Parts: sequence; C-alpha cells; structure tokens
Amino acid sequence: MKGRPERRARKARPKSRAPLDKLGASGKARPLGRGEARLLDRVKLDERGLVPVIAQEEDGTVLMLAWANREALEATLRTRRGTYWSRSRRELWRKGDTSGHVQEVTAIKVDCDGDAVLYVVRQTGPACHLGNRSCFS
Amino acid sequence: MKGRPERRARKARPKSRAPLDKLGASGKARPLGRGEARLLDRVKLDERGLVPVIAQEEDGTVLMLAWANREALEATLRTRRGTYWSRSRRELWRKGDTSGHVQEVTAIKVDCDGDAVLYVVRQTGPACHLGNRSCFS
Repeated sequence: MKGRPERRARKARPKSRAPLDKLGASGKARPLGRGEARLLDRVKLDERGLVPVIAQEEDGTVLMLAWANREALEATLRTRRGTYWSRSRRELWRKGDTSGHVQEVTAIKVDCDGDAVLYVVRQTGPACHLGNRSCFS
Repeated sequence: MKGRPERRARKARPKSRAPLDKLGASGKARPLGRGEARLLDRVKLDERGLVPVIAQEEDGTVLMLAWANREALEATLRTRRGTYWSRSRRELWRKGDTSGHVQEVTAIKVDCDGDAVLYVVRQTGPACHLGNRSCFS
C-alpha cells in the first residue's frame, strides 16, 4: 500500500535474526522474523482452524502428535517453547507449564501441502502424560 | 453366539503369526491376528471416521503425515503396504500404486490416547510427490 512513508525510526527492526534452527528456547516473546511469518503463512488450517503437529526429538524419536491453531504456532515461533491447542480443554497449551516437561523447539517445518507441521524438539522428561518418553511407546 | 459348532476343518487358521515388526510387505492380504485386531480397536477415529497417520522411515526420518480410515488401517495391517484414505480423491490410497514408491510397513503403533497412528516404513524412492525424500524436506 502506498501512502505516508512509515516512520521506521520509532520502532527499529532488529538488524539480524538467528536462523530458525539455532535459537534457544528462552521462553521470551519477540517479533516474528520474515522467514517465520512466511512459514506461518504456508500453513493451511482445517475447518476448525487447526493443523496437526508432530513433535520429534532431535534423535529421531516421534514423541507425540498434537494440534495447533495459528496462535499456538505463532507462540511457538516467538518463544521456541512447544505450544499447542488443547482440543479437550479448548485453550492454548504450552507443553510443560503444568508438568515441567517443557519442549525446546529447535526447528519448525511445514509439509509440502502446508497441512501438517513438525516441531523438532529437545524434550525435558517424558513427553507422554503416562510417563513414557513417547506417546507411541 | 451359541449354536451349531463351527466347522473349523474347512478353513483352518494359520498356526503361528509373525510378530508385527517382523513381517515383510508381501502385499498379500491375510486374516488379522488377535494383536492386530486389538491394535485396531484402540484407534479412535474422528467425526469424519479418520485418524492422522505419521509415516516414519526406519532411520527416524519423518516422511509424511496422511490420514486413514478403518479400512485403510485394516488393509495396512493385512498387507503391510502403507495404505491411507485420500481426503481429496475420497478413496483408499495404497502408497506407490501409481508412483511405484511403495511403503513396506514394518511396525504400526497407536498413541496413548488412540487418536494418532505411526507407521514405521521402508520407503522405496521419495515419499513426497514433489520428489523429495520427505514431505517435510
């Protein structure tokens, strides 16, 4: 859109961003980078506004499958903490807030059709609420 | 049900079954074993009669996420060939029938809640229709 030029001086953008797979999970929110915003735009949410998310440990173990809405994906991108949408509780669910079993997200991938997401994570403690490392154990 | 005793002599059951993770993908249909039937019964299908299925290569690479109905799961269990339900074509879809990129399924797992399935596979050729090894490449 053309119009008045933006007054960029007021809110300077950070000059560099660490690549997606190099960021630690500080839990601090920060603005989305351009690559992250593009990644988010590639995701096609279903009729409920949700997308299935696979969480995979860095060693290759598939830990769980859960669901995310746009807000959960954005929170994960901003904070690098695995965040989902709980369909049963109907609320945003940041993994580990209750159990302490947090997920540091080291990479986020979207599949070729945009209808599935993969979080590569470093999982603290078991991922499964039954105490197993993986929900598929 | 009580009644006339079954005439078992006509159709003898196979005496032994190879364990789930030891079977090759002959593509031949065979009766479901008791363990397989139990596994199938643990799966909770959603309101569309579907469950998300993760296909993972034996080396840990997540290849794709697709969907299965009960028929697709049963076909996978019987034939050890990765079989799904195509939501776009609304038909059973045995991976590789068109592309030749078949999936030999060496293990099938159901998650703790019964609402996600994992096929461990040996993938021939690329899993992704774009020619990539994984849809998450």
